[in-house]
Amino acid sequence: MNAPRLGAIESGGTKFVCLVGSAPDRIEAEIRFPTGAPGPTLARAIAFFQETAAATGPLDAIGIASFGPLELRPDHASFGHLAATPKPGWSGVDVAGPVAAALGVPVGIDTDVNGAALGEGRWGAARGLDTYVYLTVGTGIGGGAVIGGRVVSGLVHTEMGHLAVPRIAGDAFPGSCPFHGDCWEGLAGGEAMGARWGTPAEELTGETLREALRLEAAYLAAGLRNIVYTTAPQRIVIGGGVAELPGLFPLLRAELATALAGYPGLPEHAAEEFVVPALLGRLAGAAGGLVLAAGAAAAARQRPSSGPGPSGGTQA
Amino acid sequence: MNAPRLGAIESGGTKFVCLVGSAPDRIEAEIRFPTGAPGPTLARAIAFFQETAAATGPLDAIGIASFGPLELRPDHASFGHLAATPKPGWSGVDVAGPVAAALGVPVGIDTDVNGAALGEGRWGAARGLDTYVYLTVGTGIGGGAVIGGRVVSGLVHTEMGHLAVPRIAGDAFPGSCPFHGDCWEGLAGGEAMGARWGTPAEELTGETLREALRLEAAYLAAGLRNIVYTTAPQRIVIGGGVAELPGLFPLLRAELATALAGYPGLPEHAAEEFVVPALLGRLAGAAGGLVLAAGAAAAARQRPSSGPGPSGGTQA
Repeated sequence: MNAPRLGAIESGGTKFVCLVGSAPDRIEAEIRFPTGAPGPTLARAIAFFQETAAATGPLDAIGIASFGPLELRPDHASFGHLAATPKPGWSGVDVAGPVAAALGVPVGIDTDVNGAALGEGRWGAARGLDTYVYLTVGTGIGGGAVIGGRVVSGLVHTEMGHLAVPRIAGDAFPGSCPFHGDCWEGLAGGEAMGARWGTPAEELTGETLREALRLEAAYLAAGLRNIVYTTAPQRIVIGGGVAELPGLFPLLRAELATALAGYPGLPEHAAEEFVVPALLGRLAGAAGGLVLAAGAAAAARQRPSSGPGPSGGTQA
Repeated sequence: MNAPRLGAIESGGTKFVCLVGSAPDRIEAEIRFPTGAPGPTLARAIAFFQETAAATGPLDAIGIASFGPLELRPDHASFGHLAATPKPGWSGVDVAGPVAAALGVPVGIDTDVNGAALGEGRWGAARGLDTYVYLTVGTGIGGGAVIGGRVVSGLVHTEMGHLAVPRIAGDAFPGSCPFHGDCWEGLAGGEAMGARWGTPAEELTGETLREALRLEAAYLAAGLRNIVYTTAPQRIVIGGGVAELPGLFPLLRAELATALAGYPGLPEHAAEEFVVPALLGRLAGAAGGLVLAAGAAAAARQRPSSGPGPSGGTQA
């Protein structure tokens, strides 16, 4: 069998990335454009796939890694729709349906973070693992858990950025989360860092940078501890702009060891490969779209009587 | 096919419960005895099953729900052994191996908390769900997550009692956890309650009971929030002695709503059936043993060439 020809959409709050290919290093066509109003934005994505298919042959499936919150319960009437989102005009929008209807191929959809988790598992820093967590620490914090080879998605997708974590003694910053104030993201996301230090995180230098990194590592470790104790990952992969601050990872590993306090005492939790940087960078979301597309194609092959349409529950 | 004849062991830190049957309401033989030194204790359990089998016919499989920490990675040399435990004499003990060797039947093993989670899923308060969390709040706090029908067990089993949670303003109690001090269990387990109020939780009355319940509900809600955001359960089932304190559940549901602060805004999180009491009570662990036994029997039927032996990864 030839490698499937897959389409991927990373549907982000600020930009759309659409590509056709079979892997991050096998991309035959790609387009990036700013996210505008839902109708024209989705239409532009659909047109890209139609034009690519017309030029080089039909696609087998499309995968969408989208900003959220998304309704992902397969039997829900709003499956594949956005829930209430601060992004103007996008609340309640059906993201998966129009793509499936216009292109007539199976469509898989999950959140951008879960997509990136799947991408890192297939081609990146979590290759070969079946139970791991992908975390993005950028403006905000998002996390996707893959457990036993499947993305965790129960009543809703995970919302790891909003974990409750204890304050570090002496930190009086009120927190930046509009819902919770001083949740994990509200204390340790990039927006929180910028507000706390009066300077965007990536522009910090000298003693302020050192102090900011120390505090950031301590807060991130508190959330990682909660992730370790609730999902028992074999590895935690971290991407996003804040994760690229120089020197963060060694501090973070040390703070995690302090936070776990020797419990349950596994050497694996102290190993350098337990908390690692993401590998796919700006391609993570779109790579996730490819995994979701492959999953949708496989699911469609297993139930050949059903027509094309959106589906979830993708296997890593 | 006749109902399988299954054996179950709840291997607790203070007592062993062994039974033969097929469901909590179909128990044909049962024994309870204090947990002593490993050799004689396991021998007594084995003798119970041998005698029952001699009297009424052979067993199909045994399931063990054991206190931990346990090594549960199926390919690990110490699979089915206890790791370092404060219980004198039990560190490193092989719990599953001697049972499998002596009885010559498939043996499934998991933690007591994961076993109780499986039992509540099969016969109790989580019937019909595939993604839920079972929590026991007794002397300590333990939690087991079933996700997509399978118990979460990655690098190790979950350790939800040791979550990091923020302190409630004004609470100066240092916490009772020997590892973390003021982790979730160290602030909200029964031992912590007794130490904080100077009276065992079940003996509190009047205004002190009201204040204790208010604080307990707030701390429990902080941990539930972290569980909701990391594992996305359809329901949370809570057992254990502290969960039986009168009036706790309505307070807990209200505090959870406050803790989630409308994010992600699902009506399901606010419904009364989202956080519910466990149903199986003192039979929860042993019921879990029956589910583990059934899983071990099914796994053995699927690979008939392999001999009897301990196995994990049980499906709910």
